[in-house]
Amino acid sequence: MSFNLNKATEILERTPDVLTSLLEGLSDEWIYTNEGGETWSPFDIIGHLIHGEKTDWMIRAEITLSDGPEKTFTPFDRFAQFEESKGKTLSQLLTEFRDLRKKNLITLQSKNITDEDLDKTGIHPAFGDTTLRQLLSTWVAHDLGHIAQISRVMAKQYKYDVGPWKNYLPILDR
Amino acid sequence: MSFNLNKATEILERTPDVLTSLLEGLSDEWIYTNEGGETWSPFDIIGHLIHGEKTDWMIRAEITLSDGPEKTFTPFDRFAQFEESKGKTLSQLLTEFRDLRKKNLITLQSKNITDEDLDKTGIHPAFGDTTLRQLLSTWVAHDLGHIAQISRVMAKQYKYDVGPWKNYLPILDR
Repeated sequence: MSFNLNKATEILERTPDVLTSLLEGLSDEWIYTNEGGETWSPFDIIGHLIHGEKTDWMIRAEITLSDGPEKTFTPFDRFAQFEESKGKTLSQLLTEFRDLRKKNLITLQSKNITDEDLDKTGIHPAFGDTTLRQLLSTWVAHDLGHIAQISRVMAKQYKYDVGPWKNYLPILDR
Repeated sequence: MSFNLNKATEILERTPDVLTSLLEGLSDEWIYTNEGGETWSPFDIIGHLIHGEKTDWMIRAEITLSDGPEKTFTPFDRFAQFEESKGKTLSQLLTEFRDLRKKNLITLQSKNITDEDLDKTGIHPAFGDTTLRQLLSTWVAHDLGHIAQISRVMAKQYKYDVGPWKNYLPILDR
């Protein structure tokens, strides 16, 4: 299958529900434990997704759609959540993400994006030209990648408890 | 964190909701496309999870808890879903999984499992002795592993559409 705006939106609009069903109401150990070292916990990942909604996807889409002279995206801060999520509960973050995503999808829809628009380009600070189609595809894959990551981080909490079953669970070695 | 029956149940009981929010109502292309070759689509994976509820987890837990002479588990059929899911819709499979999981968790709770019970053993046909603690930990990690797999399978549908962003999305190479 290849990129289609309606089908991409099917994923983007359900991510808040997926994250809520995956995390809301879980014990703190599930929420705040990471994969060791500098890796991210589920709590950290939701903060990262919020920062993306605030500073990345739709802002970059608007730059890409614009005819302005400055088409280079501002670099994304991958560590912003460690400051921004401080003092908040997971439940607050899930609500914040839900509200931001909803607002961004309303903005996206208001653009009435055409096939021609999908070929418009913006400039990524690291690798240069990227089309709107590529940016929106990445938004979808990025959501799904972080849902997979959250599942993996939680699965790994039982890495040792599974004992001899470990060989049947490739997720524990990723 | 290490295995705890209540915290394990927190995950097991929410998996039907997670799968529903992840998949219910999606276009067929998201549901029936796999990662190529003999890999599984999201539809196949739900069938596999149903077969586990029917023939694996609680049945093996009951064998493990029993004092009967025969403690060897029946080998699990990893391909049963290709026959069993035929003619069913994804929505039917999600409901079937939800009902089976609910029934199995009621059975699990009815056992009033003690710490001593968690050390009881059954015999896996491939690797031998395994405790109830290991079996139940595996049930949890197996759920999370397949949620991650479904997310990955869907993310990979945009493997080429993301263009130069591919290097930022490790999920696409897993």
